[in-house]
Amino acid sequence: MSQSTDGVSPIPALETCFPSSHKALVSVQHGDHELNVPKRRIHLTSDDAPLDVYDTTGPQGYDVQEGLPTPRTAWVSSRMDDGGNVTQMHYARQGIVTEEMRFVAEREGCDVELVRSELAAGRAILPANVKHTELEPMIIGRAFLVKVNANIGNSAVGSTIQEEVEKLQWATRWGADTVMDLSTGADIHATREHIIRNSAVPIGTVPLYQCLEKVDGRIEDLNIDLFLETLEEQCEQGVDYFTLHAGTLLRYVPMTANRLTGIVSRGGSIMAKWCLIHHEENFLYTHFDKLCELMKRYDVSFSLGDGLRPGCIADANDEAQFAELETLGELCEIAWKHDVQTMVEGPGHVPMHKIKENIDLQSEICKGAPFYTLGPLVTDIAPGYDHITSGIGAAMIGWWGTAMLCYVTPKEHLGLPNKEDVKEGVITYKIAAHAADLAKGHPGAQVWDDTLSKARFEFRWEDQFNLSLDPVTALSYHDATLPAEGAKVAHFCSMCGPHFCSMKITEDVRAYAAQQGLSEEAALGEGMAAKGSEFREGSQEIYQSADSTPNAEEPQPAT
Amino acid sequence: MSQSTDGVSPIPALETCFPSSHKALVSVQHGDHELNVPKRRIHLTSDDAPLDVYDTTGPQGYDVQEGLPTPRTAWVSSRMDDGGNVTQMHYARQGIVTEEMRFVAEREGCDVELVRSELAAGRAILPANVKHTELEPMIIGRAFLVKVNANIGNSAVGSTIQEEVEKLQWATRWGADTVMDLSTGADIHATREHIIRNSAVPIGTVPLYQCLEKVDGRIEDLNIDLFLETLEEQCEQGVDYFTLHAGTLLRYVPMTANRLTGIVSRGGSIMAKWCLIHHEENFLYTHFDKLCELMKRYDVSFSLGDGLRPGCIADANDEAQFAELETLGELCEIAWKHDVQTMVEGPGHVPMHKIKENIDLQSEICKGAPFYTLGPLVTDIAPGYDHITSGIGAAMIGWWGTAMLCYVTPKEHLGLPNKEDVKEGVITYKIAAHAADLAKGHPGAQVWDDTLSKARFEFRWEDQFNLSLDPVTALSYHDATLPAEGAKVAHFCSMCGPHFCSMKITEDVRAYAAQQGLSEEAALGEGMAAKGSEFREGSQEIYQSADSTPNAEEPQPAT
Repeated sequence: MSQSTDGVSPIPALETCFPSSHKALVSVQHGDHELNVPKRRIHLTSDDAPLDVYDTTGPQGYDVQEGLPTPRTAWVSSRMDDGGNVTQMHYARQGIVTEEMRFVAEREGCDVELVRSELAAGRAILPANVKHTELEPMIIGRAFLVKVNANIGNSAVGSTIQEEVEKLQWATRWGADTVMDLSTGADIHATREHIIRNSAVPIGTVPLYQCLEKVDGRIEDLNIDLFLETLEEQCEQGVDYFTLHAGTLLRYVPMTANRLTGIVSRGGSIMAKWCLIHHEENFLYTHFDKLCELMKRYDVSFSLGDGLRPGCIADANDEAQFAELETLGELCEIAWKHDVQTMVEGPGHVPMHKIKENIDLQSEICKGAPFYTLGPLVTDIAPGYDHITSGIGAAMIGWWGTAMLCYVTPKEHLGLPNKEDVKEGVITYKIAAHAADLAKGHPGAQVWDDTLSKARFEFRWEDQFNLSLDPVTALSYHDATLPAEGAKVAHFCSMCGPHFCSMKITEDVRAYAAQQGLSEEAALGEGMAAKGSEFREGSQEIYQSADSTPNAEEPQPAT
Repeated sequence: MSQSTDGVSPIPALETCFPSSHKALVSVQHGDHELNVPKRRIHLTSDDAPLDVYDTTGPQGYDVQEGLPTPRTAWVSSRMDDGGNVTQMHYARQGIVTEEMRFVAEREGCDVELVRSELAAGRAILPANVKHTELEPMIIGRAFLVKVNANIGNSAVGSTIQEEVEKLQWATRWGADTVMDLSTGADIHATREHIIRNSAVPIGTVPLYQCLEKVDGRIEDLNIDLFLETLEEQCEQGVDYFTLHAGTLLRYVPMTANRLTGIVSRGGSIMAKWCLIHHEENFLYTHFDKLCELMKRYDVSFSLGDGLRPGCIADANDEAQFAELETLGELCEIAWKHDVQTMVEGPGHVPMHKIKENIDLQSEICKGAPFYTLGPLVTDIAPGYDHITSGIGAAMIGWWGTAMLCYVTPKEHLGLPNKEDVKEGVITYKIAAHAADLAKGHPGAQVWDDTLSKARFEFRWEDQFNLSLDPVTALSYHDATLPAEGAKVAHFCSMCGPHFCSMKITEDVRAYAAQQGLSEEAALGEGMAAKGSEFREGSQEIYQSADSTPNAEEPQPAT
């Protein structure tokens, strides 16, 4: 969805949004040179080590007209591929570990061989057009951290190039891993150019939109030559992945006749209409090899669009949707013959009990190709809150294996998101993605939760705020009730009142354990349980001396 | 959690929040008299029938000092039970269908026998203190619509009785099915009295809070006599359910020693501390029969608190939590011997992959007693957004069988919710509850989604707004981009621009089908598919004449 032009202003400095954090560049050796991998390092007030978290914010403080530094220029040129097949999949299949793979392994905290092997198998993609030299490489696959995409793009009413770049910076500030430029208006080429030159994250597009502009909206005038010309233009600019609706076939269109909301995809409806006008098969399907030939020379990845996805709960998991999915599976195999990286798009609107069927079928039919889903929204009844209706489905499908989640903002179905909507959408989806990482048992995911909960338990309020996804909002909510600076160091909060503190009991239990000469480890578990009766004997003086401080921890009312 | 006093002002009229809705009283015959069951009737601009939805708003426009009408006075007195066992479970087990059961069956749209049999089996509760004669009866059980609880209560800083009643009205305005009064400050008795007299929904409390006030916070001075005296006081006022921490046993306390955040329940920590001070077993456990004897004379339901629930992801599903659950199962059986209605409270903080184990274990150990959960929060890293982190878990556990969800507001862990926070929390939880109803396949749940999606597909903007959970917000989001009144009737929206409309294709497919003399039914399916080639022949003139209007339906970018 493109964005409204309201509320766009130069974004604040990194430190303003993330107090006590700084961007740390971790140096990684690759052959004879070093790669600098960015992390956000959150410093704590305790003796605990600072926490490094994944960072998508990109290099800061560069002039929009100049664009970002281009570290990949050297990496790409060193491979001297002379216009041959330059895809990461192609290298991976030859057993070659690229700078991009090394960079990604450090970001993910995994072995680089996992990165290479997943790319070689087609179970992950590393979207990285050789012309997008400003890129900080990232990976999309079920074996890795769940990613989030945010959409920008100038709207019909128009917005300046400066504003579009600021939308990009704002979305990545809050954690967007990729950004799609869905511009449809004027200056579409120049806008995209500035977005790519200022983006450290992969940029995706729906080239059909620009093709349609070129034929003044006359769908019947679309053809493969116009399409290839447009693709090449965008390949040269450095677009990292294309959403293409090559699976929306003529014979599937009648399957949508009995739907409540028909075809709800823009790209899908255009291709369906083209097919019917010409009574010919979708030209993206019949010329799919030509698309692969072009894209492998730049390493642009496919994002195979699901033009027939359901637009409401009633249409979920129907014949049309799954018929198209079969074709998308067929196209994955063709793309892989060319070593072109490929992911597959998914719904949409799906009730909870039908979500798993989507990811399981996609994984089987598309042979493990990464799934990239929109939501899904688990109910239709809450326009104005569809970041939440979709965030629920997104967390679940992420847990079950979806590799990237396309965000939805509160304005979905109603209007164009402003900056606050974009932030709300990205943060909601970071929650969904992280919850999925936890449920998948992704190594290292839970340390963030544990670090924050330890700060909460120890009443380190500042640390609790700074460790949250949105520190400034957390602080402001706290201060709304207890503005006093003292309240941020006291063992006190506004929730439970000054009567008692559940925390104190645990402290006393531990103090008792120590008193008994038990090691903390022994105390924590068997040792402690075994000491049960002794503990009860000894407890009196411990607990009568316990003075009471309040408990900040508790959701109510199940207290 | 109690609420802050800011932002509380007289709430607007029902019609202001729900345009084109009116409260319809559906008359139901019960023996020789009629019961009036409220529904919210949403009127549409199309020829479609209005949609009736569940209504929790209660009678409007009554003076807070006077309180609401008392329809149940006649029902209760007609049973002339003279202080014996007056619980709905007691009647259900004798095969008696009460007015309350009949009322509930109409609200749920089910057979009254399902209501009676589920109550008799202990798989559902109908919280209805005979002294709460203002009540509009509702039911909590996995066979019925998933319910939502909201918390109010005056805080230490204090708020007026008028403000507390307005919080009650505000929470039920947006759909709260029950409300817990967690007041801890002054005027605790008078505040509760006014809340109950003005509440059409069941009111729950944590009596321990008032007991602790009576002993000036000296936990060691708590005892069963003080407790029973306080319970009787609240029974007389008409409290419908009590949260009691009778399962937090002395021997379980050491099991919390190795936790990251120890004991995070206020009630649980108080009872644990009492046990340790006296080195005696929890007096609510040892005197549980006395509690039953009292509560069955009023029909107050148990909400068995989980005092040892986890307060963070790291502590989820541990030994302490499940040990207490075993005891709660034991207490359910004792309560049922007295025909006292009982539900069981649950966590808390639980990652997605550990949620199902909670509901499955509870259902098995507590023999199907209704589960009442707080969230659960699926990650700890987003203070400021815990309505979302918990709404994800709430939707899932609701789908899997939880009967009632306790809401969480954006201020959770940080401060006291204001009116906007309460609304945000309730609406987030109505989304979770409805999504669960859809996933459970609850009869009648999907008609709401289908009615809204049909309005969306037909560009009936006003209907789309009025059918949403929060019509005014939906309208304001739309108008933020397209304020013109015309935009609300035009086949146009701000999302896709004036190029084309996916909807048109479906219309044309159907027009063609009609043209061929196929019935809609035949067209929609085999007939249509069989006509494939003929359809393609005929399609040209259909589609060339098709003028383009935009598609409002689509989440982006997977278009």
